[in-house]
Amino acid sequence: MSDTELNAHAVRLSGTSLRTLAETGDDRSQALILSVAGLEFDATKQCLDEAALEALFARARASGLESKRDALLSGEIVNATENRPALHMAYREGGDLVGSDAAALVARTQAETREFAERVRSGDYAPSGVPISRVVNIGIGGSDLGPRLVADALADHADGGPELRFVASLDPSDLKHAVAGADPAAILFIVASKSFSTQETLMSGEAARDWLAGHVGATRAGAHFAAASAAPEKAKAFGIDPSMVFDFPDWVGGRYSVWSAVGLALEIGLGPSVFQAFREGAREMDKHFATAPLERNMPVLKGLIDVWNRIGMGYPARCVAAYSARLGKLADYFQQLEMESLGKSVTVDGQPGSTPGGALVWGGNGTEIQHSFFQWLHQGGDVVPVDFIGVARHFSSSDPRERALAANMAAQGAALLDGRKVDPATEPDLASHKSMPGNRPSATLLLDDLTPATFGALIALHEHKVFVESVLYDINPFDQWGVELGKVLTKGILDGDISSYDASTKALLARTGLISG
Amino acid sequence: MSDTELNAHAVRLSGTSLRTLAETGDDRSQALILSVAGLEFDATKQCLDEAALEALFARARASGLESKRDALLSGEIVNATENRPALHMAYREGGDLVGSDAAALVARTQAETREFAERVRSGDYAPSGVPISRVVNIGIGGSDLGPRLVADALADHADGGPELRFVASLDPSDLKHAVAGADPAAILFIVASKSFSTQETLMSGEAARDWLAGHVGATRAGAHFAAASAAPEKAKAFGIDPSMVFDFPDWVGGRYSVWSAVGLALEIGLGPSVFQAFREGAREMDKHFATAPLERNMPVLKGLIDVWNRIGMGYPARCVAAYSARLGKLADYFQQLEMESLGKSVTVDGQPGSTPGGALVWGGNGTEIQHSFFQWLHQGGDVVPVDFIGVARHFSSSDPRERALAANMAAQGAALLDGRKVDPATEPDLASHKSMPGNRPSATLLLDDLTPATFGALIALHEHKVFVESVLYDINPFDQWGVELGKVLTKGILDGDISSYDASTKALLARTGLISG
Repeated sequence: MSDTELNAHAVRLSGTSLRTLAETGDDRSQALILSVAGLEFDATKQCLDEAALEALFARARASGLESKRDALLSGEIVNATENRPALHMAYREGGDLVGSDAAALVARTQAETREFAERVRSGDYAPSGVPISRVVNIGIGGSDLGPRLVADALADHADGGPELRFVASLDPSDLKHAVAGADPAAILFIVASKSFSTQETLMSGEAARDWLAGHVGATRAGAHFAAASAAPEKAKAFGIDPSMVFDFPDWVGGRYSVWSAVGLALEIGLGPSVFQAFREGAREMDKHFATAPLERNMPVLKGLIDVWNRIGMGYPARCVAAYSARLGKLADYFQQLEMESLGKSVTVDGQPGSTPGGALVWGGNGTEIQHSFFQWLHQGGDVVPVDFIGVARHFSSSDPRERALAANMAAQGAALLDGRKVDPATEPDLASHKSMPGNRPSATLLLDDLTPATFGALIALHEHKVFVESVLYDINPFDQWGVELGKVLTKGILDGDISSYDASTKALLARTGLISG
Repeated sequence: MSDTELNAHAVRLSGTSLRTLAETGDDRSQALILSVAGLEFDATKQCLDEAALEALFARARASGLESKRDALLSGEIVNATENRPALHMAYREGGDLVGSDAAALVARTQAETREFAERVRSGDYAPSGVPISRVVNIGIGGSDLGPRLVADALADHADGGPELRFVASLDPSDLKHAVAGADPAAILFIVASKSFSTQETLMSGEAARDWLAGHVGATRAGAHFAAASAAPEKAKAFGIDPSMVFDFPDWVGGRYSVWSAVGLALEIGLGPSVFQAFREGAREMDKHFATAPLERNMPVLKGLIDVWNRIGMGYPARCVAAYSARLGKLADYFQQLEMESLGKSVTVDGQPGSTPGGALVWGGNGTEIQHSFFQWLHQGGDVVPVDFIGVARHFSSSDPRERALAANMAAQGAALLDGRKVDPATEPDLASHKSMPGNRPSATLLLDDLTPATFGALIALHEHKVFVESVLYDINPFDQWGVELGKVLTKGILDGDISSYDASTKALLARTGLISG
C-alpha cells in the first residue's frame, strides 16, 4: 500500500461534496460511527467512502497493525531506540493484558501512592503541624501536562482534598504565583521528573526548597517534598526522604506517565477513588483496542482517519475543539502526545520516512474559539479538519446553556460541511465576503458525560490512535531524540562555550550580555 | 509584484544554509535587526537575503502600503464591508495621530472608566456594604482574550486591586469556578460585549445575575453589574444601571478592544496607572509605525517577513514561543488577532484572492513547549518558522533560572538553524534518529523587560504587522463574516428547524435527543 493509492482515492472523491457523502446510506454510517466505553466517535463528516476506508484498513493490515498492537500489549521492545517496552497500560489493569510481572510491579507502587494520598487528605500527614491544604506539582512536559489536564478536567468530581497548583516554568514568577496566598506550612511540593535530571524541574525544586526553608526552617522543609521519578536514587540524592520518593519503571514514557506516580498530585487532590475510576475508563478502552476487530476498533478507526487526512488528503494540521470549560487543556495535551510521538522523519529502521509523520495539532475550547480562529477555518485558504469533542448529556440538558453549547458544536460541524453561497443578487457588495466554501471535514467525539471513567477512556483512545498512526508511518512513537540538541546547546551557552555557534546566535548573546562579545 | 517573484527568490535561496546567510555581513544584520519602544526584533535567522528583502519592500510599496497606513491612521473607512474606520489607536494617544474628534470621544469614556476603577479600588464602591474583592469579566472572543491576556501578563505589576477572574464558556462549570471562594457581596461582574447580543455572554450574564440575586437579593444584585459595550442601550435594556454602562464606538473592533472600556477589568485589577502605561507603550509603537521609513519600520518588517514565510517560502503555520510564565496566553491572543483578521480568501473588492491569506498561528510557553511539540519542529516533516519572544533582562539576570530561561530560548533558535548530523560511525543504530535537518527559520523578539509599556508596544506591533500583511494580501483585516453562518445554524438547531441540514448533523441531533429524529 502506498500513499499513491490513498491519494488516488482522495482525487476520486474530490468531486463529491461532503453533503453527498453523508447521504450515501447506512453502511457508510455504520462503518464510521463507533461507540465504546462511554464514547461515541462519529466520522460521517469525513471525506471518505467505503472504498477509501477499505484501502485504509488494507494498508493497516499490510503494515502489520494487529501483530504490532499485540507486541505493544505483551511488553515487547517496541521502543527500539531506547531498548524498552511501552507498558503504561499496566497502571490501568490487573495483569490480564500486559502480564503478571508488570502488574505486580505497579501494584506495589499504586499501594504506596494511595496510602500517602490518604494520609495527606486526612490531615494525618502534617509535617509542620497543620494539614496540607495546597499541593504544588513541579514538573514539565509529561510530568506537568498530564496532572494539569486531569486536575482541570475532573475538578467537578474532586472529593474534597487540597488545592492543586502547577509550576513548569523557569520564570520565577511561576513559582511565586503557585504559592501565593497559601500558608507555607500547609504546602506539599511534588517534584515530578522521570529522569530527575530535568533542568527546569530541579532549578524550580531548589528554589521552592529555599523559599520554604525560609518559612518553616531548613530541617522541616524536607518533609514538605515528595518526588515521582523513574530515577529514585537521584531523587533521594536531591534530598527527598526515601519514604517520600514514589518510583515508576523506565518503560513508562513521560507523555504517558499521568497514570503512574506522576499522577500523585491527582490522587491527593481529586481522591484515590476518582483517580482509580479514571484508570478504569482507560482500561476499558485498552481492552477494546486489544480485542475488537480492526473495522470496529475505535482507536484504529480514529488513527486511520488521521492518517487519511495527513497523507491521503494532504492536510498539514488538525484542530481539537473541546466543548467543555473543563477541557481547556485537552488540545495542549493531545498536542504533546501526538507531535512528540509522531514528529519524526525517519522510520523505525532509521531510513528516511516516506511520509511526513504526524500533523500539527492545536486547538482550544468551544465556543470560545468560534470567536477567535474559526474565521480562518471557515474562510481561510487552507483546509484543516476539526475534531469536535463534547458531552452527549448537554444535548438534552435542562440547563439552556448546556443545550446551547451542544447546539453550537453541532452547528459548527454543519457549517464547515455545507458552507454557504450568498446570492450576489440579494447582497451585491457582501455576497462574496459572506460566502463560505464548505466541504471542510470534521469528526465528532461525544462523552456520554464528563466523568473520570469516560475521560480516562478518551485519553487512552488517543494514546492508542497515535500508536496506530505510528505503525502506518513506520516510526517509533515512544522516543524523542529531537529534544536533545537544544539541551546541549543550552549548556554550551551557560558554560560560555559557543565558538561553534552560528553568527546570529553569537551576536544575540553578545548584545544581551549573557556572553561577552 | 507577484508571488511568482517571491517564490523565485525562495528557490534561489534554497541552496543556501541559514548558517551561511547569517554570516553574510553587517548590511544584512542591520536590515534585519530593529529596535524601538523597548523592543528588539531580530530576523537574522530568516531565510532572506538583501535581494529578497528588497523585493518584499518593493511589493509593499506597489501594494500602496504607505498610503493605506495613512488612511488607517487618519480614520478613513478601511473596513469597507462594515463601512467603518478602525481607530482603536485613539485610546492610546491625544489626537496628534488620529485627529481631535476621535480623541475627544475617547477622552470622555476614559475619564469615566478611570473614575469608576478608582472608586472600586478604594472600596468606596461597595454595593452590598463590603468592598469589591473580586471582579469577574464575562465576555468571549475579543471581550475576553484581551483582558485575560493582560491580567496575566502584568500580574506582577498590579498595584493592589481586586482579584480578576474570567468567564467565557457556556459551560456552567466556568461561572461556578469563577465565583468559587468569594463572598458574593464582594463580587463585581463586568458584562463585556461589543454588540451586547452575544449569545454566550448574555446567557452567562443572566446566570450570574440569578446566582447573585440568590445571595444578595434581586434588588441589590443589579449594582454588582457593569457593562462594556458599543451598544449601550442594549446593556441598559439588559438591566444594567446606566451609570454602570461604559461604551465605546463601533469603530473599535472586538479583537482590538482591550484598549477601550473592554479593559475595565484591567483598570480595576491592575490600576489605572498600569493600564495607562500599557497604552503609552502602544502609543510609542503607533508613532513609530506612522512615521518610520518602511525599511526601518518594525511592524512593516515583521509583517513582510510573515508574508515571505507564507507566500514566498510556502509555510502553512507560524509558532509563537513566549519565554515568560506571564505570557502563557500570548499565543492565543495573537492567534485570534491574526487568524480572524487574515483568515479570508477574497480580496477587499470581493474577488477570489491570489494568496491563501494568513497562516495558522499557534504556540505556547517556553521552555514548557520544548518538552511538548518542539520534537515536531526539529524533526517533523514540515517546516514551521518560530517567533521566540523573550525578555532581554533575563540574559544578564542574577537569578540563574532567568539566565537558564534565556539560554534555552537562544539555544532553540540555534538548534533549529543548525540542526545536527550525527556520524553513523560513532552511533550506527541511533545516528539517523538523532540527526536533525536544521535550516528551520526563526525570529527573536526581545522586550527590554516585561513592563506595561513594553507589553503595550508588543501588542501594538502585532496589530500593525497584521495590517501590513492584510495590505499585501489585499484583504480586509477588520471584518469576520466567516463566524456568521455558525450562529444562524445554532439558532436553527435550538429552534428545531433543521430540515435543510446535512444528513450527518440530522442523525447526530436525533441520536443525542436535542431534536427528536
